[in-house]
Amino acid sequence: MISKSQISFIKSLQQKKIRKANGLFIVEGLKSVSEFINSDYTIDTIYYTENVMPKLGNLSQNIKSIEISVSDLTKISALTSPQQVLAIVKIPKHRDLTKQMLKGSFTIAIDGIQDPGNFGTIIRTADWFGVNHLVCSEDTVDVYNPKVVQATMGSLSRIYVAYFDLHEFLDDPGVPVFGALLEGKSIYETNFGNEGILILGNEGNGIRPQIISKIQFPITIPRFGEAESLNVAVSASIFCSEIRRNS
Amino acid sequence: MISKSQISFIKSLQQKKIRKANGLFIVEGLKSVSEFINSDYTIDTIYYTENVMPKLGNLSQNIKSIEISVSDLTKISALTSPQQVLAIVKIPKHRDLTKQMLKGSFTIAIDGIQDPGNFGTIIRTADWFGVNHLVCSEDTVDVYNPKVVQATMGSLSRIYVAYFDLHEFLDDPGVPVFGALLEGKSIYETNFGNEGILILGNEGNGIRPQIISKIQFPITIPRFGEAESLNVAVSASIFCSEIRRNS
Repeated sequence: MISKSQISFIKSLQQKKIRKANGLFIVEGLKSVSEFINSDYTIDTIYYTENVMPKLGNLSQNIKSIEISVSDLTKISALTSPQQVLAIVKIPKHRDLTKQMLKGSFTIAIDGIQDPGNFGTIIRTADWFGVNHLVCSEDTVDVYNPKVVQATMGSLSRIYVAYFDLHEFLDDPGVPVFGALLEGKSIYETNFGNEGILILGNEGNGIRPQIISKIQFPITIPRFGEAESLNVAVSASIFCSEIRRNS
Repeated sequence: MISKSQISFIKSLQQKKIRKANGLFIVEGLKSVSEFINSDYTIDTIYYTENVMPKLGNLSQNIKSIEISVSDLTKISALTSPQQVLAIVKIPKHRDLTKQMLKGSFTIAIDGIQDPGNFGTIIRTADWFGVNHLVCSEDTVDVYNPKVVQATMGSLSRIYVAYFDLHEFLDDPGVPVFGALLEGKSIYETNFGNEGILILGNEGNGIRPQIISKIQFPITIPRFGEAESLNVAVSASIFCSEIRRNS
């Protein structure tokens, strides 16, 4: 059973300010919820429909779980097709990304991406390629937005994502700084080495001038046809693949 | 001015069966409409808001154009934020993709992709990389769906897209047939040569078994991290990039 006020509270978690004030966000679907249960995140409550709990594994037994009807799940879900289970998860405490953590690995820096689907897809792709750190400008879409969480397909449970003043963060980070730009050295002629930061810009405006000034290596994906630009999640993927093909 | 019955007709073009019955689809936004005007497509009518026509270039002068209010544009638009201009465009006659057209180029074969955003992004990416032919199984999402058209960002005006019985189409096509699979030769160790067909599968189910049987070269994108899969538009992009990096 779930009360009317609980329903309205869970729905309100679709708003960033309510998530921030309560330190909570929602995760939906068997696969994603299972991955958060098996991660460092702390689950506050699981709302599940009949017969779903056994599919969530042993670890879920220690978590507060409430069985609800399909119709109540529809009320609290942010999805057009609700998926059997919804978990309320605690937003983790901000951890600094130290220079030590940057060494010997790749970090993606996001400058103002706005589309939740694009951002979630970048996190999922980064997880595939073992790029485990993402840093974002403060105006980037909130990573705990339900549409972002959904598009990560569970990968958010494994990837470090933090919001910083990017300009400050990029002051002498101690590893090479690459930027995805329309003008630059061909990605096919670039040796990314074994560590660095890759900056990706906003969908319409690209990387801000003051952030461009921090780029040591402007890199471009050569164009062979006529399209004016690539989707930012597509660019991110091609960069991740090129970084790994040489590693 | 636009009548109530015209408004209701244009809105009905968001449905596949109405598009098919009338041979018409809608394109929105200055950039996309301009690209369709400058393409082989035939424009039926342009609906524009004040002062927009000059931005559409000389060729638009010979096209039937109707000025409407912003509030009427909102009524006929399929977008949440309507963009100054909407064109009704004729669906071109089906052209066969001959074996001759397959030679010396790359063709993407789509087996049942359902998400309009994914499909549109694949068309945009194919256009960037100069992959000019897409063939789709008959259950693939309709390319003239407004969300697909929007996601192509104008690239649909330049790319050949047709729906076939894929199984039949892949019978002895005369060029190598590659398939994007979770098991296969590493994409980084594959020489794609200068011609071929690349098969991409449905978001959840991948490529159908009877289509898998047509694959001569199963190719995979190696995984370095933990994500279970890649988004299909992301996979398509990495394949397009690898095909071109050797060309």
